[in-house]
Amino acid sequence: MVKKTIKVGLLGLGTVGAGVYRLLQMNGAQINRRAGAQIEIKKILVRDPGKKRTTEVDAGLLTVNPREILHDPEIDVVVELIGGVEEARTYVEEALQHKKFVVTANKDLLATAGTGLLQLAREKGLNIYYEASVGGGIPLIRPLKYCLGANKIARIMGIINGTTNYILTKMSLEGMEFEAALAEAQAKGFAEQDPGNDLEGRDAAYKLCILAGLAFSSRVRYEDIFIQGIGGINKRDILYARELGFTVKLLAVGEEFAERGLALRVYPALLPLTHPLASVFYENNALFVEGNAVGEVMFYGPGAGALPTASAVAADLIAVVRNINHRVENGIMEADFEQKNVVPVESLSSAFYLRLQAQDEPGVFASLATAFGKENVSLDQILQKRNVAGTAEIVLVTHVVEEKSFNLALNRIQKTPAIKRIDNVLRVIES
Amino acid sequence: MVKKTIKVGLLGLGTVGAGVYRLLQMNGAQINRRAGAQIEIKKILVRDPGKKRTTEVDAGLLTVNPREILHDPEIDVVVELIGGVEEARTYVEEALQHKKFVVTANKDLLATAGTGLLQLAREKGLNIYYEASVGGGIPLIRPLKYCLGANKIARIMGIINGTTNYILTKMSLEGMEFEAALAEAQAKGFAEQDPGNDLEGRDAAYKLCILAGLAFSSRVRYEDIFIQGIGGINKRDILYARELGFTVKLLAVGEEFAERGLALRVYPALLPLTHPLASVFYENNALFVEGNAVGEVMFYGPGAGALPTASAVAADLIAVVRNINHRVENGIMEADFEQKNVVPVESLSSAFYLRLQAQDEPGVFASLATAFGKENVSLDQILQKRNVAGTAEIVLVTHVVEEKSFNLALNRIQKTPAIKRIDNVLRVIES
Repeated sequence: MVKKTIKVGLLGLGTVGAGVYRLLQMNGAQINRRAGAQIEIKKILVRDPGKKRTTEVDAGLLTVNPREILHDPEIDVVVELIGGVEEARTYVEEALQHKKFVVTANKDLLATAGTGLLQLAREKGLNIYYEASVGGGIPLIRPLKYCLGANKIARIMGIINGTTNYILTKMSLEGMEFEAALAEAQAKGFAEQDPGNDLEGRDAAYKLCILAGLAFSSRVRYEDIFIQGIGGINKRDILYARELGFTVKLLAVGEEFAERGLALRVYPALLPLTHPLASVFYENNALFVEGNAVGEVMFYGPGAGALPTASAVAADLIAVVRNINHRVENGIMEADFEQKNVVPVESLSSAFYLRLQAQDEPGVFASLATAFGKENVSLDQILQKRNVAGTAEIVLVTHVVEEKSFNLALNRIQKTPAIKRIDNVLRVIES
Repeated sequence: MVKKTIKVGLLGLGTVGAGVYRLLQMNGAQINRRAGAQIEIKKILVRDPGKKRTTEVDAGLLTVNPREILHDPEIDVVVELIGGVEEARTYVEEALQHKKFVVTANKDLLATAGTGLLQLAREKGLNIYYEASVGGGIPLIRPLKYCLGANKIARIMGIINGTTNYILTKMSLEGMEFEAALAEAQAKGFAEQDPGNDLEGRDAAYKLCILAGLAFSSRVRYEDIFIQGIGGINKRDILYARELGFTVKLLAVGEEFAERGLALRVYPALLPLTHPLASVFYENNALFVEGNAVGEVMFYGPGAGALPTASAVAADLIAVVRNINHRVENGIMEADFEQKNVVPVESLSSAFYLRLQAQDEPGVFASLATAFGKENVSLDQILQKRNVAGTAEIVLVTHVVEEKSFNLALNRIQKTPAIKRIDNVLRVIES
């Protein structure tokens, strides 16, 4: 039986919730035409119905009681936009138990509890849609699930945190210091007051869980991701990188190696200026995907924001309505995900960038070369930079080496008397 | 009734056909898992079964008789990869009449006969899938239909012809002359021996028909597209453009203006070096989409090639199998397309780049300024370049003006005695 109206309950009316409400008003006729039915928001769960809001919402829609949505048999779809894990999980489970399809923009929830929730959805003959959980309005989930579905994917690499990309762009294009760039990002609302999740790479790692799961048909655990944040990046690193032909980006990288398994990491890295991801500036996000048939494709756009994220939520709503009325989804592909081996970062190989302070005296380069040589680490480029009070700043880029060997060389260097301090170590993406 | 095996007939075993055959061998298990059924190629239509092929194909699959595919009741899906319009249309119609779903990579067919064929498919309760018709393996059709389905799209702008982008890239990055770049493109197989369709913009215009149709929910006719090719581009235009902060790209642009309608054109244009499309090099393609919710998103990747195109065909095969077994498609959205008004190019506005030869004498700039001023065209930048035997090369960029006014100014300039020759006129994209 085809329903002419599909009733939806929203959980949350924050930035994204208000964006979804607004978008359904702005483009409602088109959205309903594409969905093949009228989409009607019946109730919205809020904490404080009296709160002043920038988007005008019919007060009669608001409720503080989640059961008015989760237990309402008229509501077919629950859109979870409250964020966080525990409360959201409880609501999503209850929604599924009450036979409601779920749309969510909640990356933390998907990354930590996605497997179980998708399993529950499958048992109930339902599904969970989560296009908005990664990359804001950029189509990423559907392209990975469907458009590139005939490919074995060898690597995904992306800029999937807008806050850190904004900061690194400000440092790179405008020569700002880290602290000033962070302050500006906070002032513009691109960084939260407590920016730890972004700066330390956890936000990107949650998103990598979701993307790598789809790319490699694997259940990916957050704990399996190697994470390094951007806190250690100095303006000078960015200047030197540029001199060497690179820019610095916080990258989320997932790779599958035949027989060895998955390599998953989030770290700031030097990226060639000619790489398509190098031109992804400010709060924009992009995902680069390498498939064995398609080659290299990239998806680019705003990674956050009320309306961009609402665009993804509304695409999911169109899909879920078609699903309800025409049984579009025939199973949950995530259920077929295998558990795959994860390669520890020490066993991976990479080129490295190294910035250090050394005594400005004869023989320093020789002792560095010796230390690297003993671990079979060969050097690609060396810059000697400003010399202040007898201290020279030296910048090195190695060829690709096993991380283990590089770490051993680093140990040797730290023990070299002429080396005063190692300031920064960053990985280098060569292509 | 869910079919465990879906039998497919291929029409054509050229580059793309062989790629599809190869991809189904390479990634068959995954493709079948995603499709939820076994995809089996039952027959392949070829002209010459004895022809030596680089991809080894079971000779028993080959036939020269199209009816062995089009009339075989066991075959559920026909994949049309022969190209061209007349023969392909006959086969696709016959396939639909015989209750077969159709997958095609044929942009000419879609652009010229798509409306009627999709209508016929709808009447028969079938559908036509054409992800591979534009942008090779880059997901474009599905994102426009589904992922961005909640957006009103204001503009699409893309590099959708790999041959011309290869030539312009060679001229831009390597300083090659047009003829040398074309010869290299031909030698590498990126340009055909008769490259007219590519160089003169017709190939891009066919693709723009398809993309603009989806973006603006409109039936777009090839004849409504303003087309200018890249034949007039000189290496010096590219050098001057760079000096002014731009690169030169062959762009396909579709816009919808409230009340006025659609503006559709294919032309070489100056594009700011900071624009995401400016970094799309060589044979790569990209489509930039501006939606009223999502903002600006871009899709990037290889726009042609056997396996990339096969990746798109195979994604369609997965979709069609799911459709057959689970009635996934509930109608053909193209059937709702409206006929929209098309704004003639003269009524549009643009900034312009102009390169001309003038007598190197006092008063030339003044007479140029007067000619522009009389038509209310104001100038943004002026370069005076090499002076050979009393002739100065002058490069101008105007502010945004109505094309009509610019043309009137151009007429005045042509009549100015000090102006010897107008060498090139290109449009300038400002953002």
